[in-house]
Amino acid sequence: MKKNVTAAMIVIGDEILSGRTKDLNTGHLADIMTAIGIDLTEVRIVADDEPAIVAAVNALRSAYTYVFTTGGIGPTHDDITADAVSRAFGVECRYDERAYAMLEAFYAKREIEFTDARKRMARMPAGAEHIENPISLAPGFRIENVHVMAGVPTIFQAMLDNVVPTLTTGTKLLSESVHCPYGEGVIGELLAAIQKEHPETIIGSYPKYRDGSFWTELVVRARDPQRLAAAKQAIETMVAGLEGSKGM
Amino acid sequence: MKKNVTAAMIVIGDEILSGRTKDLNTGHLADIMTAIGIDLTEVRIVADDEPAIVAAVNALRSAYTYVFTTGGIGPTHDDITADAVSRAFGVECRYDERAYAMLEAFYAKREIEFTDARKRMARMPAGAEHIENPISLAPGFRIENVHVMAGVPTIFQAMLDNVVPTLTTGTKLLSESVHCPYGEGVIGELLAAIQKEHPETIIGSYPKYRDGSFWTELVVRARDPQRLAAAKQAIETMVAGLEGSKGM
Repeated sequence: MKKNVTAAMIVIGDEILSGRTKDLNTGHLADIMTAIGIDLTEVRIVADDEPAIVAAVNALRSAYTYVFTTGGIGPTHDDITADAVSRAFGVECRYDERAYAMLEAFYAKREIEFTDARKRMARMPAGAEHIENPISLAPGFRIENVHVMAGVPTIFQAMLDNVVPTLTTGTKLLSESVHCPYGEGVIGELLAAIQKEHPETIIGSYPKYRDGSFWTELVVRARDPQRLAAAKQAIETMVAGLEGSKGM
Repeated sequence: MKKNVTAAMIVIGDEILSGRTKDLNTGHLADIMTAIGIDLTEVRIVADDEPAIVAAVNALRSAYTYVFTTGGIGPTHDDITADAVSRAFGVECRYDERAYAMLEAFYAKREIEFTDARKRMARMPAGAEHIENPISLAPGFRIENVHVMAGVPTIFQAMLDNVVPTLTTGTKLLSESVHCPYGEGVIGELLAAIQKEHPETIIGSYPKYRDGSFWTELVVRARDPQRLAAAKQAIETMVAGLEGSKGM
């Protein structure tokens, strides 16, 4: 059996923390990680602030198999991710030769000046490898287990598509959902007992509220399909046995 | 002049990390904090895992003026926020007398059994104060600077409405946005110079990509309206001067 593989995400950007931009990248990463059997275990959203980025990178890269960052790799003064990640690793942030040549050729072909700002996009930590960007050319990069990607969702998603085949995936955490027309108060004890009887599964209870009444989405997760099926069966039996219950 | 007031958010729940539920509470909190002049500075999303919650609470409550948590305060076995927050503060997690009596009366009136699971919702750290829940009764709570609220967005929002009037607000960070029809590569150096000339403002550049072309949203933020206006003027002059520029 394969080992569990874990991941953490760092979302970098004042615009997310101010509410101006709503973060879509975490939800997308979560979906992809779940699909390929990697457990996304922690997410941090930090400001465009070097010490904050350095602290998050160093806390998470030692704790999880993979770290993904999004945001702060463009050509403007507030794009400081390459510097911060370099500092986190204690290596120089310098022009990457291949990225520099690629961007230089790209702008030359279009007769656009290759300004210092545009050159910033070729900067990355010494020893980093490119993550290809099929949309706007400027690459993301990987250094050790940290993958640095763009914040614009379409570019983030395209870069992640290029990263996924390089990852060691785990045993996929399978998941089944059971609709429960009763509130959590009705099922709490019964569900706790089922969780206790099925220790190799993770049973989650997600309360929903709509139009003045409560219902619950019950989700059972397991790496083993038979254990999953057994716990799901127990939950369905519980729900069926509650017919006529009321309350929340 | 009032001091800056800072906040951090902890989103608790496996369902966010698996992608099954998309987090709406961070975006809502960010909007509200911005509106009342509190700087949301960090967000962490953690699993339903006591050590992870304890670590996040203790890291953030000492670093920021306020901490807000969302999720894990219902009646099921995976609702462990009250226990985790109690452990973070080193106090007992026990039935709160007033919450217990309130819930007991609520269920008695509806002739619904007050089960052990439902009683769980009356548990909170010793010394905590209620955060009223106008939707499903079970209160959130505050202990020192940590505000513990529900994960269901409608309930979270209702609880937050009750918390906001109790907060010390800061000087509101004012914000103005300038549409820039050019990519970041065009404006990078000019914008960096403007940032340098207007050090009491925060100038952010948010690249946008749509239908094969790039544009940029430029956002200037400041606590002082005159400084804000001066920087905005400089940015508008820059954008006007770029007419006919191309590239990204």
